[in-house]
Amino acid sequence: MNERESRMALCSVVEPGNVEVAALVAEHGGAAVWSSLLAPASRSRWAARARAFDLAAVEQATARHRLRFIIPGDDEWPAALNDLDGCEPVQLMGGNPFGLWLKGTAGLAELAQRSVAIVGSRAATPYGQSVATDLAAGLGSHGISVISGGAYGIDAAAHQGALAVDAPTVAVMAAGLDRPYPSGNTALLHRVASHGLLVSELAPGEHPTRVRFLARNRLIAALSPATIIVEAAHRSGARNTVSWANACHRVVLAVPGPVHSANSVTPHRLIRESEAVLCSSVEDVLELVRPLGRQVSVRPIQRRPLDALSAEELTVYEALPARGALASGEVSLRSGMALGACLGVLDRLTDHGLVSYGSAGWRLAQVPVTRAGD
Amino acid sequence: MNERESRMALCSVVEPGNVEVAALVAEHGGAAVWSSLLAPASRSRWAARARAFDLAAVEQATARHRLRFIIPGDDEWPAALNDLDGCEPVQLMGGNPFGLWLKGTAGLAELAQRSVAIVGSRAATPYGQSVATDLAAGLGSHGISVISGGAYGIDAAAHQGALAVDAPTVAVMAAGLDRPYPSGNTALLHRVASHGLLVSELAPGEHPTRVRFLARNRLIAALSPATIIVEAAHRSGARNTVSWANACHRVVLAVPGPVHSANSVTPHRLIRESEAVLCSSVEDVLELVRPLGRQVSVRPIQRRPLDALSAEELTVYEALPARGALASGEVSLRSGMALGACLGVLDRLTDHGLVSYGSAGWRLAQVPVTRAGD
Repeated sequence: MNERESRMALCSVVEPGNVEVAALVAEHGGAAVWSSLLAPASRSRWAARARAFDLAAVEQATARHRLRFIIPGDDEWPAALNDLDGCEPVQLMGGNPFGLWLKGTAGLAELAQRSVAIVGSRAATPYGQSVATDLAAGLGSHGISVISGGAYGIDAAAHQGALAVDAPTVAVMAAGLDRPYPSGNTALLHRVASHGLLVSELAPGEHPTRVRFLARNRLIAALSPATIIVEAAHRSGARNTVSWANACHRVVLAVPGPVHSANSVTPHRLIRESEAVLCSSVEDVLELVRPLGRQVSVRPIQRRPLDALSAEELTVYEALPARGALASGEVSLRSGMALGACLGVLDRLTDHGLVSYGSAGWRLAQVPVTRAGD
Repeated sequence: MNERESRMALCSVVEPGNVEVAALVAEHGGAAVWSSLLAPASRSRWAARARAFDLAAVEQATARHRLRFIIPGDDEWPAALNDLDGCEPVQLMGGNPFGLWLKGTAGLAELAQRSVAIVGSRAATPYGQSVATDLAAGLGSHGISVISGGAYGIDAAAHQGALAVDAPTVAVMAAGLDRPYPSGNTALLHRVASHGLLVSELAPGEHPTRVRFLARNRLIAALSPATIIVEAAHRSGARNTVSWANACHRVVLAVPGPVHSANSVTPHRLIRESEAVLCSSVEDVLELVRPLGRQVSVRPIQRRPLDALSAEELTVYEALPARGALASGEVSLRSGMALGACLGVLDRLTDHGLVSYGSAGWRLAQVPVTRAGD
C-alpha cells in the first residue's frame, strides 16, 4: 500500500493519540509502520486488527459519505498539527494524527491558520452560551474562524456564533464523520459542514469513546493559535483541551464569570494560576492573536468638538502631549491651573471622550477598536 | 504646643495627603513644622490658616463627639501607615497622616494588622454587593476585620457583611467624624462605630471633597495587608485605592464577574494586566494573607467508605501515593489496569470524593477548607 493508504489503515486500526505508533510514523513514515504491523512476526497489540483491516471498505465509506482523507504534506494539511510530534504527552496521549477525514467545502490549512478554538462545558449556562456565541461572531466578523468540538453547550454556541455572521467554522469530532454526534446537533453539524468543515482522525463508522474525546481535544488545541475556555466546572473535558494548548505552547484565554457559578470555577482557577489570560471581549483575543502591525477596524466615537470646549477645558486639553501620559500634577503645572480645578476639568474632558486616565496618568483619548456585534 | 497638639493642628490646617508637609513632619516632627508655619516669616500656603487655627475649639469638638485623636507612636497607631512615607505619590498625594481621629470601641492597630480592605463602586450591582457581603462575612468569621470607606454600594455591603457575623469593621472617612457621610448610611456607620471603628484624618466639622476622597483612599490601602476590588466601572475611585495598594506593596485582589457587566471592567482589566490576583472566594484571600503554617478550619467531606469500594476501585485507590500526584499512565501501570478502564475508575473515585485531578495528575483527595458561611 502507498503512504496515503497506509495512513488510512493506521487511522482505522490504531487508537488515536497513541504516542508510540505516532513516534514510529514520524520517524519511518506510515507505509513502513503499516508493513511492520502486518509482518507475521509483529508482536504489536494492533497486529490482529491490522490483519483484519479492509481498505476497500473504508475507501468506499469515505466516498459514500462525501468525505476526503488528507495526510501530512497535502496542501490542506495544517502545519500546526505537526507541532503535536514535539509536544509533551498529556494523559499518556499525543502525536500528530496519521491522517484526517474532512467533510465540507472549506480548506482546513487556511482556516486553521486564522482560527481560534472555543471550548467549554456541555452543561453550559445561558451566560456561557451567550459569551461563546458573541465571541465566535465577533471573531468571525474579523475573519477569524472558530474551531470547536461540535458538542452541546459551549461548542454548539460557538459554532452558531460563527455561522450567524457567515464565518466558516470547524468541528473536530471524536467519531467517524458518517454520522453526526451528538445526534441532537445533527442540523448544526450539517450547517458546519456546508459553511466550514467537519474533521476527524477516525474512520467512518467509528464511535466516540472517552479516550477518543481526549485524543480529539489535542487536535482542537493544536489546530488554533489560541484556545478560549468559556465555561468549565471543576472537572471538565475542556480542562484537558487547555492542557493540550499549553503543551503545544498555544495562547490560552479564559472567560471569567460570576464567582457563584460552578461553571466558572475552572476558568477562574486557570486565570488565577496564570495558566490562562483573562478574556472579556473580542479585543482581548485580537490583542493576542492578531499579527502585529495589522490595522484594526475603528468606529467613530461621539466626541465633543474642541471648539465647544471652555477656555479652561481647552487649556488643560492642550497641556496633554500628543503621545504618552502625564501625572495629574504635571498637567496642573503645564496648564497653570491648581490641581483641584485641573482634576475637575480632566474629569469633564474624560466625559467628553477627549482624555482618558490610566496607570501612567492622563492622556489624549485613543479611538477604541470595534466591539463584537457593533 | 506639644507634639500631639501640633499634629492635631496640622491635620486641621493642611489638606490631607500633602506630600511636602508630610515629608517635613517625617523629618522634623509635628511640633517643629507647626512652629515654622506660625513663624511671622512663613511663606507657606498654609500659614494664614495656621494663624487662624483654634486648638481649643477642635479639642472641644473631639470630646463632644466622643472621638479620640491618635498620633504615630501611640499604642493604637497602625505601623502599616508609616509605610506611606516611603510610598511613591499617587496623583501627587501621599505621606503618613499627621494623626487620626477615631470613633468606636475597637483598637485600630490590632484590627488593621489582621484586616482586608474591600472597595468598589458606589453604583454597585446586586451581584457585586452580594459578593462583597459574602467575602466580608467569610473573612470576619476567620477573624479578619474588613476595612472600607463607608460609602454606598460595595463599601456598605462589605461593612454589613462583617457586622452580620459580629466581626469588627473599620470605615475610613473623607470628612470629620462628627457627622456621618453619606447621611443615607447613618445607621450603618453608627453600627460600625459601636462594633469597630470610624477613622479620619480630618477634624470634626470638615466636609468631604474630591481631593479628600483620594487622600482617604491611601489610608484604606495602607492600613490593610490586602485590598480586594469587587466592582468598578472603567472610571472609578476604587481604581485609585488599588494604585495606592500597589504603591504600598500590598496584595491586590480583584473579583471577576460577568463580562457584560460594566462594573466588572476594572477588575477584569486589573487581573488581565497582572495588577491584581483573581479572587473568587474567601479561600483565595486567605491563601494570600494568612500567615504560613496557620491551621485552617476544616469540615468533614461526605466520603464513600473504603470498604464500600469494588476490588477494582480499591486497586486504583491504593495505587495512588500518600503524598503527591501521578499521571494517568503511571496510575495505570501501578494498578496493572488498562488506561481506559483506569480512567473510568478514577472518575468514579473522584465522584466519591476520594481522589482529585489537578495539573500534576491524580492524587488522594485533600479535605477542603471551610467555605464562607458554611
